[in-house]
Amino acid sequence: MKAAVLYSGGKDSSLMAVILKRLGYEVELLTANFGVFPSWKSAANSASCLGFKHRILDAKSSLLEGAVNMILKDGFPNNGINHLHREVLRLAAENYSLVADGTRRDDRVPKLNSAEIQSFEDSNNVQYLNLAGWGHKTINHLSQQFFSVVKEPTSMENNSDYEIEIRYLITRDEGEDTACKLFPPHIQSRVIGWREDEQK
Amino acid sequence: MKAAVLYSGGKDSSLMAVILKRLGYEVELLTANFGVFPSWKSAANSASCLGFKHRILDAKSSLLEGAVNMILKDGFPNNGINHLHREVLRLAAENYSLVADGTRRDDRVPKLNSAEIQSFEDSNNVQYLNLAGWGHKTINHLSQQFFSVVKEPTSMENNSDYEIEIRYLITRDEGEDTACKLFPPHIQSRVIGWREDEQK
Repeated sequence: MKAAVLYSGGKDSSLMAVILKRLGYEVELLTANFGVFPSWKSAANSASCLGFKHRILDAKSSLLEGAVNMILKDGFPNNGINHLHREVLRLAAENYSLVADGTRRDDRVPKLNSAEIQSFEDSNNVQYLNLAGWGHKTINHLSQQFFSVVKEPTSMENNSDYEIEIRYLITRDEGEDTACKLFPPHIQSRVIGWREDEQK
Repeated sequence: MKAAVLYSGGKDSSLMAVILKRLGYEVELLTANFGVFPSWKSAANSASCLGFKHRILDAKSSLLEGAVNMILKDGFPNNGINHLHREVLRLAAENYSLVADGTRRDDRVPKLNSAEIQSFEDSNNVQYLNLAGWGHKTINHLSQQFFSVVKEPTSMENNSDYEIEIRYLITRDEGEDTACKLFPPHIQSRVIGWREDEQK
């Protein structure tokens, strides 16, 4: 059975892909792109290093613009990002009967609540999976076992989260300062391959 | 690394064991027993059919008695069972640095909330995992792929849930009727081996 994993190139979504593959699913990694900046490239590179099939999930730029408006109005990104994530899940469900992401127990955004998950599964006749039962300690431990990971400051070139295209639009329309206030610089982990001793 | 899975012989805890094994953990299945009725036997049999190491987690009968008092006072089993589960997790954490169970997204009891999980992990220096990100559709699908399962009415002989020893005490002290009102008869799924075509 095919399974789609919404994929950023980070540890969490990479681990979800490994779990599903080891359970026998035919895993395809999807990275959403709204057509304003090619932020999918970093995730495609991580996917290729791990040997997974990767696809770009083309979404309408109007979705991104809606999320940006929400974020500028709110003054914080949570609701806008959650909105995008729900829409992207729905898009993925058009072509897959199982859609997963790497949301873990201690994640706050993007995250669907129980009612949203039930509604998503029922109205799209899809199975949805995440890592809500797994905490960062376990995921870090497994990531160290499986993956070669680089820690680095997030840039426009090395990250495939929704943040990148959102920042692109906000920087263009409101300036770099507004973008930096909404998305402060941070350090990220990016998967760049398997650990040498790890079974592929 | 060793991982303990609290094990009933059902689909959910069996699947958690398979996931952890396929991620490289040395899995040991634990079934709690409070010394009043040998309800662990059914789980031990399922574990043996799947080829997993199985241990009985000996717990004090006073814990069970406390839970039974809570259940009789409440008039419903939820709080008593949750109480037992928290204490059993704590016992397991004395000997394992990773403790998992098969709690899935749509389970109600036993279930720890986020604060309880965080507190359990921190105060016992343990990693806790469950299947909170996985729903019944996915677990049923995987169970059909992996396991040979028998569906049958729950009896004192074919089930290793906390319910069995609780029922034993309530039947002894309050009579069969009270036990049946608190735990109405139901149909259960019990894992009795691998599917023939499944990789062990």
